[in-house]
Amino acid sequence: MIIVMKQGAAQPDIEAVVKRVEELGKKVHLSRGEARTIIGVIGADDHMVSEANFEVMDGVEKTMRVMQPYKLASRDFSQENSIINVPGAAIGGKKIVVMAGPCSVESREMILETAHMVKEAGATVLRGGAFKPRSSPYSFQGMGEEGLKYLAEAREATGLSIITEVMSVDEIDLVGAYTDIFQVGARNNQNYSLLKALGKTKKPVFLKRGISGTIQELLMGAEYIMSGGNMQVMICERGIRTYETSTRNTFDINAVALLKELTHLPVCADPAHGTGMASLVPAISKAAVAAGADVLMLEVHPDPKRAWSDGAQSLNPAGFSKLMTELRPIAAAVGREI
Amino acid sequence: MIIVMKQGAAQPDIEAVVKRVEELGKKVHLSRGEARTIIGVIGADDHMVSEANFEVMDGVEKTMRVMQPYKLASRDFSQENSIINVPGAAIGGKKIVVMAGPCSVESREMILETAHMVKEAGATVLRGGAFKPRSSPYSFQGMGEEGLKYLAEAREATGLSIITEVMSVDEIDLVGAYTDIFQVGARNNQNYSLLKALGKTKKPVFLKRGISGTIQELLMGAEYIMSGGNMQVMICERGIRTYETSTRNTFDINAVALLKELTHLPVCADPAHGTGMASLVPAISKAAVAAGADVLMLEVHPDPKRAWSDGAQSLNPAGFSKLMTELRPIAAAVGREI
Amino acid sequence: MIIVMKQGAAQPDIEAVVKRVEELGKKVHLSRGEARTIIGVIGADDHMVSEANFEVMDGVEKTMRVMQPYKLASRDFSQENSIINVPGAAIGGKKIVVMAGPCSVESREMILETAHMVKEAGATVLRGGAFKPRSSPYSFQGMGEEGLKYLAEAREATGLSIITEVMSVDEIDLVGAYTDIFQVGARNNQNYSLLKALGKTKKPVFLKRGISGTIQELLMGAEYIMSGGNMQVMICERGIRTYETSTRNTFDINAVALLKELTHLPVCADPAHGTGMASLVPAISKAAVAAGADVLMLEVHPDPKRAWSDGAQSLNPAGFSKLMTELRPIAAAVGREI
Amino acid sequence: MIIVMKQGAAQPDIEAVVKRVEELGKKVHLSRGEARTIIGVIGADDHMVSEANFEVMDGVEKTMRVMQPYKLASRDFSQENSIINVPGAAIGGKKIVVMAGPCSVESREMILETAHMVKEAGATVLRGGAFKPRSSPYSFQGMGEEGLKYLAEAREATGLSIITEVMSVDEIDLVGAYTDIFQVGARNNQNYSLLKALGKTKKPVFLKRGISGTIQELLMGAEYIMSGGNMQVMICERGIRTYETSTRNTFDINAVALLKELTHLPVCADPAHGTGMASLVPAISKAAVAAGADVLMLEVHPDPKRAWSDGAQSLNPAGFSKLMTELRPIAAAVGREI
Repeated sequence: MIIVMKQGAAQPDIEAVVKRVEELGKKVHLSRGEARTIIGVIGADDHMVSEANFEVMDGVEKTMRVMQPYKLASRDFSQENSIINVPGAAIGGKKIVVMAGPCSVESREMILETAHMVKEAGATVLRGGAFKPRSSPYSFQGMGEEGLKYLAEAREATGLSIITEVMSVDEIDLVGAYTDIFQVGARNNQNYSLLKALGKTKKPVFLKRGISGTIQELLMGAEYIMSGGNMQVMICERGIRTYETSTRNTFDINAVALLKELTHLPVCADPAHGTGMASLVPAISKAAVAAGADVLMLEVHPDPKRAWSDGAQSLNPAGFSKLMTELRPIAAAVGREI
Repeated sequence: MIIVMKQGAAQPDIEAVVKRVEELGKKVHLSRGEARTIIGVIGADDHMVSEANFEVMDGVEKTMRVMQPYKLASRDFSQENSIINVPGAAIGGKKIVVMAGPCSVESREMILETAHMVKEAGATVLRGGAFKPRSSPYSFQGMGEEGLKYLAEAREATGLSIITEVMSVDEIDLVGAYTDIFQVGARNNQNYSLLKALGKTKKPVFLKRGISGTIQELLMGAEYIMSGGNMQVMICERGIRTYETSTRNTFDINAVALLKELTHLPVCADPAHGTGMASLVPAISKAAVAAGADVLMLEVHPDPKRAWSDGAQSLNPAGFSKLMTELRPIAAAVGREI
Repeated sequence: MIIVMKQGAAQPDIEAVVKRVEELGKKVHLSRGEARTIIGVIGADDHMVSEANFEVMDGVEKTMRVMQPYKLASRDFSQENSIINVPGAAIGGKKIVVMAGPCSVESREMILETAHMVKEAGATVLRGGAFKPRSSPYSFQGMGEEGLKYLAEAREATGLSIITEVMSVDEIDLVGAYTDIFQVGARNNQNYSLLKALGKTKKPVFLKRGISGTIQELLMGAEYIMSGGNMQVMICERGIRTYETSTRNTFDINAVALLKELTHLPVCADPAHGTGMASLVPAISKAAVAAGADVLMLEVHPDPKRAWSDGAQSLNPAGFSKLMTELRPIAAAVGREI
Repeated sequence: MIIVMKQGAAQPDIEAVVKRVEELGKKVHLSRGEARTIIGVIGADDHMVSEANFEVMDGVEKTMRVMQPYKLASRDFSQENSIINVPGAAIGGKKIVVMAGPCSVESREMILETAHMVKEAGATVLRGGAFKPRSSPYSFQGMGEEGLKYLAEAREATGLSIITEVMSVDEIDLVGAYTDIFQVGARNNQNYSLLKALGKTKKPVFLKRGISGTIQELLMGAEYIMSGGNMQVMICERGIRTYETSTRNTFDINAVALLKELTHLPVCADPAHGTGMASLVPAISKAAVAAGADVLMLEVHPDPKRAWSDGAQSLNPAGFSKLMTELRPIAAAVGREI
């Protein structure tokens, strides 16, 4: 950490800061510039030394953090890309993994039909929600365990792995009994109780960025899970909330490229939530692949206008197949397969 | 709901939309303008009729919602302000309630000392965190039940009611055994599992706006709790995330005033999180009172530079007393007391 | 426009709104729902009928606009893509146009060297600023007319067309005497005096989105120019300001795809400003091409660490050549050339 | 400036950075931490040394600016509040100045009537637009010079000073021939050509924050004017663009309080644009005064539902008089008058 003193800070104020740093067991590196004195904190584990405590001291103008607060999730921890294996897919490897399926499991027939269709078109993981976080308490909240059973049946029938959302600590055992991958939704990105509990499980976790989460907060969410012992985490850009209302969210394509620099974890993209408009999903899927995404998550519904949730952003079967075909040369152009 | 058809939409497309509305059991009101046809959905409970499903139909340009999705939380439900009673305070009444205390309970002595001090200065509720949502898994996570016990002891000693945060469904019983008011933090504003479970309790809930939550989402969070049967909800503006980085958050003073129009629930303000800077807390506290807030939540610490969390935004005892004095004429100017 | 009355609005309030609409020469379409009355304004030119005037009337809850406010820029005006011809490039055609060069013209030698280099790598338009909008009055403000002369000389030497920024009405004649394309920067996106004056010129205009401009405001900026008589407008996504600070701006890839739906004008992408980081420029350039951009604008500098402005986001010559090579298969994959 | 090297940066990379700093005529202060080396640039005029140029050098992780880029506008330049005198008002003094009037001058009668009314209620400056920046080229663009003449006539009749907007360099002489204070609108906050030209005039400038301008950019806008020689600048918070759409903008009350810390210039508040809703203007006006604003700018129209612009956020005469009365005790509570 670096502490910048105010212009003309009094000597006793400078000394008080130095003393406080030393009390915390750190060394000080003092630099007197023409206008300001700057105090470097050396050997600091930033987690013990809080910027906030120095910012309230007399004569301090501001503090600046030098180190990133995440460790296990960082490229410093592993230069090599992590690969997470589930049946049928090596997530983070050369082949881009497509996870596809409806927003919600709506019936046994529907999920089986969708599973066969997305498999045929090239998906290797089936998505579908059984517990749904809905913005209204009066909306459909998901089929619950019945939905999980249909997902498992679809896995049996197709060989696809499955991913489904877990919303709460007390649901982990139930969801974990069926799913191959735990999905943590955007609204739970900073539900630390849930993240800690998932860190104690042995199944991969697909962690979505918060609706207005920073890239750093996304990596800190991964760190919460990893620091509990579960290193199988993949992180997902799903659009962020901005002032622009023409689209449901603003898909942060920069984040896809930047995350590939900052972390060894697989980087996923969710163009359906990232746009909220089915007509934009193909273009943004191509962009995400071109920018380096390892995983595409897509919403596919047999009949979007009758979907119980997220119909506006779901592809129909023909649209999904067409997109898969169009993605292949893009993937090849960036040295990948799909 | 209103469905706007594209310019020159084909007659069969219009008919398909009309048919779909009628299938859903609603009546149609058709309006043919010079350029566009507009289809009104009459008698609709919007929770059954999703905009998304119409937006994917051929010929539809966009849909617009007419009704607010919250009911119990709205002014339509109750013109009169709701008052929530806890020992020593009628929250939402003429007297503005001040909830004060440290970010975290750090020790028995510290919370007792703070409790006596804030009571003397005019607070009626004591705040203090025992379970802390921290952005890093390596940071102090709160004292847990030990902290709750100290809070309860401080209540005994001072007669103040207490408020503390609950982060997870499985903590509700434990926290509820001690606290007078459940606090739901900004990161859990859309943790629907938690909100539903709190709707089944009988204690008041203090619900913070999400870090980038809309005013509507805040009211929908209240609706989640209220639809479960617990009508004792107060809602809190605590600063939102914007592009401006000079302050930790942007305190949305408009929200304070607008919420007083939209809802009968008590409206709270949290200037500490709203600014992140102790030097700004007095000005923003005054502004919140001037704009109509029913409750002020303030962070007070005996020695902010040694606080284990949120030191930069905590007032010291002298600062808190001074602020309380300065707030009195402001409250009087808007017909309130404090 | 649609006017939604409040629940239980009084009959005289409804009548007053109807009367006001009719006074403005429009017809009314009245729809009484179970809860609310909705008043449609038919035959309205929305530019004469302001939502604001109805929102202040008693009993009105809100108003909703039905029509887009832009006309000449919309797809309704022209289904076919507009093509803007400059020497050496048909902007908006099958071949993606690359505009490359330094942020600022720094010297005669530097711009000539860069021009030859970018031409060889495949660019068809040379960019370079002579008048620079800098956030500090103490920063380098551009070489002015001397810089324009060097750009013209580089055009002579290479056959590249040139594009450079115009910042003010009184500079139009001077800049227009040299440039092939006027560039309007993000900070001037709503400088309507400038836009109107450019609408009276006969040279193409490259209009950047405002730093926090909406997609609609970008199109309204184009409308300002086009309504003056100059239909040769291209619009550019250059990153928007959001809460995320890991990158300089958030490149709105959704906007690239959505603008292709909404307008017939050529859609440009500026990954340098969109990211602020040279290391991300290749990935975002590929993404923009994959999403449908017609033009890529890139900052290239012979030695970025010595650039007088924007060094952090400029490619060096080797990086630019490599990127051009990598873009070719992406362009081919979406049916384009580069 | 501080340059943070990457973990394990090679010695030659460190030396290259040091050499570059020295080439630029600055001294280096080297600090080797356990994990990282940090290079302080001493004696730097940051305007000559660009962070960007170092960020592209090998081994550099990031750079951090130590000094604020504004000088003349800062509290370091003057601890004492600046006072700007116009006939009838000392802006920045103990008495809070109220500037009131319609969005646009619509006719001679209307502006005269409004002027008399706002004067009687306690305003000391009359506002009214003659040149209007409208988002649509098809909207009313202002009465131009005719409007300026009516404003001047209203000044004669009432003794109020007048303020009106100037949009372009070529309008400065015309507008300056009539107005007492130049207003620069939010859209021109970074129109540096205009700001520079105003720096050469001798009349006070009222500078609005950009629609998504940072507090620093606002102060840099003031710096542009002041560095040209005109020190009579006042700055205005007018609401910023955020994700929240319930209100037209988000009034940044934090900015009002923080600007009073950062600058000696008078700080103004514009609750009409800050909210977009007349019903919220009284509450936000009170809040702004409570938070320390020196000036309130208010939109007042004899009949808001017939206003040619901004009717939804304008007070009617009765509302304005009532608000002025209610503001007096708030001003007194913070040691001011109004």
